[in-house]
Amino acid sequence: MSIKKTETPVSFHMSTEDFRKQGHAMIDWIADYWKGVESMPVLSQSKPGDLRKSLPPAPPEQGESFDEMMRDVEQHILPGITHWQSPNFFAFFPCNASGPSVLGELLSAGFGVQGMIWATSPACTELETHVLDWVAEMLGLPEQFKSSGKGGGVIQDSASSASLTALLASRERSSKFSGNTQGCDNNLTVYTSSQAHSSIEKAVRISGIGSDNLKLIDVDENFAMDIEDLTRNVEADIQTGKRPCFVAATIGTTSSNAMDSLSEIGELCRKHDIWLHIDGAMSGTAAVCPEFRHLLDGVELADSFCFNPHKWMFTNFDCDCFFVADRGVLIRTLSILPEYLRNQATESGAVIDYRDWQIPLGRRFRALKLWFVIRHYGVQGLQHHIRKHVELAQQFAAWIEADDQFELMAPAPLNLVCFRHKGGDKFNQVLLDALNQSGKLYLTHTKLHDKFTLRMSIGQTNTEFRHVEQAWQRIRKTAGMIKNRK
Amino acid sequence: MSIKKTETPVSFHMSTEDFRKQGHAMIDWIADYWKGVESMPVLSQSKPGDLRKSLPPAPPEQGESFDEMMRDVEQHILPGITHWQSPNFFAFFPCNASGPSVLGELLSAGFGVQGMIWATSPACTELETHVLDWVAEMLGLPEQFKSSGKGGGVIQDSASSASLTALLASRERSSKFSGNTQGCDNNLTVYTSSQAHSSIEKAVRISGIGSDNLKLIDVDENFAMDIEDLTRNVEADIQTGKRPCFVAATIGTTSSNAMDSLSEIGELCRKHDIWLHIDGAMSGTAAVCPEFRHLLDGVELADSFCFNPHKWMFTNFDCDCFFVADRGVLIRTLSILPEYLRNQATESGAVIDYRDWQIPLGRRFRALKLWFVIRHYGVQGLQHHIRKHVELAQQFAAWIEADDQFELMAPAPLNLVCFRHKGGDKFNQVLLDALNQSGKLYLTHTKLHDKFTLRMSIGQTNTEFRHVEQAWQRIRKTAGMIKNRK
Repeated sequence: MSIKKTETPVSFHMSTEDFRKQGHAMIDWIADYWKGVESMPVLSQSKPGDLRKSLPPAPPEQGESFDEMMRDVEQHILPGITHWQSPNFFAFFPCNASGPSVLGELLSAGFGVQGMIWATSPACTELETHVLDWVAEMLGLPEQFKSSGKGGGVIQDSASSASLTALLASRERSSKFSGNTQGCDNNLTVYTSSQAHSSIEKAVRISGIGSDNLKLIDVDENFAMDIEDLTRNVEADIQTGKRPCFVAATIGTTSSNAMDSLSEIGELCRKHDIWLHIDGAMSGTAAVCPEFRHLLDGVELADSFCFNPHKWMFTNFDCDCFFVADRGVLIRTLSILPEYLRNQATESGAVIDYRDWQIPLGRRFRALKLWFVIRHYGVQGLQHHIRKHVELAQQFAAWIEADDQFELMAPAPLNLVCFRHKGGDKFNQVLLDALNQSGKLYLTHTKLHDKFTLRMSIGQTNTEFRHVEQAWQRIRKTAGMIKNRK
Repeated sequence: MSIKKTETPVSFHMSTEDFRKQGHAMIDWIADYWKGVESMPVLSQSKPGDLRKSLPPAPPEQGESFDEMMRDVEQHILPGITHWQSPNFFAFFPCNASGPSVLGELLSAGFGVQGMIWATSPACTELETHVLDWVAEMLGLPEQFKSSGKGGGVIQDSASSASLTALLASRERSSKFSGNTQGCDNNLTVYTSSQAHSSIEKAVRISGIGSDNLKLIDVDENFAMDIEDLTRNVEADIQTGKRPCFVAATIGTTSSNAMDSLSEIGELCRKHDIWLHIDGAMSGTAAVCPEFRHLLDGVELADSFCFNPHKWMFTNFDCDCFFVADRGVLIRTLSILPEYLRNQATESGAVIDYRDWQIPLGRRFRALKLWFVIRHYGVQGLQHHIRKHVELAQQFAAWIEADDQFELMAPAPLNLVCFRHKGGDKFNQVLLDALNQSGKLYLTHTKLHDKFTLRMSIGQTNTEFRHVEQAWQRIRKTAGMIKNRK
């Protein structure tokens, strides 16, 4: 790259007028995209390398027009998008964005503030604390998870990071806040079910506790943690001089939406002074509806709880709500105060500095989008749409049950239905591939009881009855065609 | 919260028409904000609790209008904002957003895809790999940091997370990929200078290596790592059976913008098989200009390097570019493949799954905004603005040097000037507070040679000569007033 000292214009920045023009166009582009996404192939049909082939190998020396960039978005980026915002997206878990949320994200980018400490933008910290108190109220969480008590909430990027943060806090508490200065205590042990999310194992590895010290507890026939096996493991470990420090329970496992029994796990944790963390990444949202709140029975025994509005509460990624019952433990675990961050507000102790509640130092103003979502929908609006998703899933499950070619593979307590065709593993893999290649819908799979199982996850913002009905018709029809082909 | 099963309307979602209307209004709001931000008090004059007092204690049962929400933004949020986008923001480090970047963020939110694995949106992964190769080219990084070689780049949320990720990879490499399954090896040792960012110590604590195993190396008179002290420490540790695994060198320390000698550190690291990570969070951007690229001499000896376009390259937070020389090490460190994420593309080995390059599983489509920025400005446009910031800082430093009331406290190689009034610590604290309370500019402080020092950090997108000149006039005038008051 050679530089010529040519005559430079005053500025290469986008002018205010251009920002308005291109900004309006971008808003319209997104509105059109959302309107048309239903008819696009849900799963990208792109092959490895397709996009990279279409891009120039070197960055441009001179600036290009925004119109050129948007042309490339349409021609080259769009075919490589798997449309998470399509109402026909039934894969993995939902990532259900919404208008107010996206506008909140936009405003946050416009402010461009760093919320690492209170002083760097008081509103960024205070709105987050306040909205997380609202969320605690909305979910019926006990008082200790609110900022008015000893605890409080914080927005993390993901449930993975929330689990890691909780694990680190438990590690320090179990080490009596020695700081593990000479390296992690190798006697600490951690427990989660064999159906828990892979992020728990990742956290155990990251923390230096070591994967041998993670005990994967058996599950019962509904894929929920087997309390007897947990109790056996904890007690055996104590007897051999290990120090159980952390149990991660799940409300809605990724694989099959299984619900661990929080009350029973919580009692055991209290008895042995073990940190109980609850991962309710997708399903925690259900507690916004009182009729589903029983799934959180026992949460009052937990030390921490997290769920992701960026999955099923109409808030675009990233927005994980992480609540702790004792914020002091978290702060003692992660606080470092270098000179260049010292300030009067911090020293006064009257404010929250969220940098001490998370792994990174820097943070965006993510509370804005969550605030916008809650205010736009109101609690009743959120309840309406969550209920509707659950109803759709229950309808789908009823169709499966009524069809003698298909079977349910796990209970469907909320919005995820695990099922399979009775034709065997190979048949279901062929069925899944055919469905996804059709572009009309996108499903993913798991293994339950060692059998290849399809997952129908219902929660995209705009998914209506007709999308679920069409999906079911297509599944039946495609299965029929595969069967006839044989 | 009580629920009434009232007649529910079909949908509480924001209509397409409303999204267009409110979206256009939001774009205009941001354009107006940017235009007017120069005249707002830079540092928020808000007191702890001010915002929370103005917000209702409970979430709304019913949805509210977007207009109401924006009214609250203006009345209650705005006074609690410290304006990082003001051209009079000279505190901490810049966070210089730009039009194309904010529109990229908006588009990313509109797509709302999860980029955890290639298959969940191929374009999200491929654009990131491609743009990071561009960035490597723009900075003159050696071939090993590109995806065409053994390494490659990835976007992390922050330099904190990049450093932690690098440390974890070094921990596994030094443990011969045993996985530290029985807990972290307590003999590992880590080195960084006493001037390095606090995130290094935080990473050491998180990783379970333990803060006693972090050696804070002395610095020379320019606050750069003292190679002799580093050598002494490494060799002494080896002799006592410790296993040095990681050195974090800094290009542009947070406190004073000191530059560690990468070549000398790199040679020592090669000799003892130690992972060399380079944290160039703000100053790495300077390497876009060939005349500053010498600061990275020795980077070819490093195992990893990171810098933040979200600081000084016109890309809104979060966007840290993290490069590794051997991606295999990273993947072996962080990879976990549960059944529900299995897919043909991953099994084929032909694609990158970025979830294995970072702590969390989920990830946004952050490459879009970086792509937009590079294409909008072109390499020459970026160079122009980076050079201008450096020129402004050099001018400011010259004014300080020419004034017998003030003194420079450290070399100013780029865009940060560390200085103080000769009136002593107390005087400078009073000066800083008076300046920040004026609302006309915002500076922060550090301690150098144990003296209270002011930091003038120049890099906001719209900072021009007149802002720096006005700041200097105000600093002189305010200092004069304080002196006369005595």
